[in-house]
Amino acid sequence: MFVILPHNYIKMTTQQIIQQIQQKKSFLCVGLDVDLAKIPSHLLELEDPIFEFNKAIIDATHDLTVAYKPNTAFYEAHGIKGWMSLQKTINYLNENYPEIFTIADAKRGDIGNTSSMYAKAFFEDLNFDSVTVAPYMGKDSVEPFLAFKNKHTIMLALTSNEGAFDFQTLIIDGTRGDAARSGAKELYKQVLETSKKWKNSENLMYVVGATKAEYFIEIRKIVPDSFLLVPGVGAQGGSLSEVCKYGMNSNVGLLINSSRAIIYASNETDFAQKARAEAFKMQQEMEEIMNLKFKV
Amino acid sequence: MFVILPHNYIKMTTQQIIQQIQQKKSFLCVGLDVDLAKIPSHLLELEDPIFEFNKAIIDATHDLTVAYKPNTAFYEAHGIKGWMSLQKTINYLNENYPEIFTIADAKRGDIGNTSSMYAKAFFEDLNFDSVTVAPYMGKDSVEPFLAFKNKHTIMLALTSNEGAFDFQTLIIDGTRGDAARSGAKELYKQVLETSKKWKNSENLMYVVGATKAEYFIEIRKIVPDSFLLVPGVGAQGGSLSEVCKYGMNSNVGLLINSSRAIIYASNETDFAQKARAEAFKMQQEMEEIMNLKFKV
Repeated sequence: MFVILPHNYIKMTTQQIIQQIQQKKSFLCVGLDVDLAKIPSHLLELEDPIFEFNKAIIDATHDLTVAYKPNTAFYEAHGIKGWMSLQKTINYLNENYPEIFTIADAKRGDIGNTSSMYAKAFFEDLNFDSVTVAPYMGKDSVEPFLAFKNKHTIMLALTSNEGAFDFQTLIIDGTRGDAARSGAKELYKQVLETSKKWKNSENLMYVVGATKAEYFIEIRKIVPDSFLLVPGVGAQGGSLSEVCKYGMNSNVGLLINSSRAIIYASNETDFAQKARAEAFKMQQEMEEIMNLKFKV
Repeated sequence: MFVILPHNYIKMTTQQIIQQIQQKKSFLCVGLDVDLAKIPSHLLELEDPIFEFNKAIIDATHDLTVAYKPNTAFYEAHGIKGWMSLQKTINYLNENYPEIFTIADAKRGDIGNTSSMYAKAFFEDLNFDSVTVAPYMGKDSVEPFLAFKNKHTIMLALTSNEGAFDFQTLIIDGTRGDAARSGAKELYKQVLETSKKWKNSENLMYVVGATKAEYFIEIRKIVPDSFLLVPGVGAQGGSLSEVCKYGMNSNVGLLINSSRAIIYASNETDFAQKARAEAFKMQQEMEEIMNLKFKV
């Protein structure tokens, strides 16, 4: 199931992501959150265990997945050596599997001139297709990312962790102060609505946790066409079928992330095959859901 | 005005920060946001212009400042080379000026196991005294940072940029949903109140922008004793005297950050002296304010 691409392939329009999903019958994203305490011990003797682990996982799963998502924290924890592993991983992906969508899960966000630097770091220096950002600092903290053409900015809306209920689901008073616009609603809905008005908002995707599948109904009313990056299936307990039931649109519109359930399926020498087996299981579920939904 | 410290100096209790402020009659933090386009051109010929710039700025201003704050974006934008400059900068500070409080301005935050990795990156690998974090993902995204003893976690509350008004000042309905606790209030106030209940919350400080000095009155009602890191004086237009009028507590309780106004005071070979002159001006203003406030 190899996809042949022209040499001058320009990464990565939304249309190209959709095409990948249709070709592979998969909307799986594999999270490359590499923890040295959890990877097979035989890799630890190599010069760059993190990169070797990623390379093996990528080679074993690339035809079943449409996206890879290294979380920057797991690389930064190892300082310069970790940053080198991240750079080697993204270079390996761009050189060998340019059709695959790459996500730097970095959750950045700062005042304008600083966000521009982060955008430069992930879009230019590392050459990721997308980066995750946090909304708290508002418009001028996100727009510098959105200014990049054919790059995608994936903003936190409703996350998959317990702390999501601390602030994201607080009810905004729709009659007072700066919110006197369009009625009472949860903060994450206001975040979605406000972000749609930002410059180049067509380059936005959103993070929505799988652990709260029924929330997708409301979210799809606000952002029917946007791609949603969905963590929380697998180790965090979310259900794939529930998420698809409420969250899928006519282009699928979902990237379902799985990290631990796939990459740590085994910590023996067979780790890559076992990761493939888990990825295959998810791809098969996804194919079934797509066939049912689109009556292929 | 050199401060002699024991060899086994344990960085960095709040008491030690307060002591520094009293000794130096300064609560100035210098932001090391190094942009290669803005530094003196003669430095560009050196092997590590960013580190050389920082070293010169630090050597010229260390007796006037109590904290340095490199913003990670400006280092990440240069990839591995940038991360090396950051590491050299923090090592230089820890080795030569261990009495000075160091802040990694990184604005991180993620699910629990990932935030632990970020905490490890900044507190252990790089050995900063503190790191800035974003509140959107709630309790379990911040508590892994708070678990580090004698390290400080500086959470965004009310930022200095225009986008602060997009979400931070929205009014939370105090009668409905998860917020049915203690009356209607702005989101940033709820963030402050909620965070006080988190485990090891004594290790929290907060970012509050100088551009909104009158807000400090309300903020001090919620967190009277906490240290506040205050960006926005100088290039962003905030007034030092206004911030002190409303935000200072009996331990001063403020770290006023200035980046561009100090580090880019000149882009000629005299840049370090000119930076010192600007820092001295601010320190003198601070000394005057402290003398007035504490009737020394």
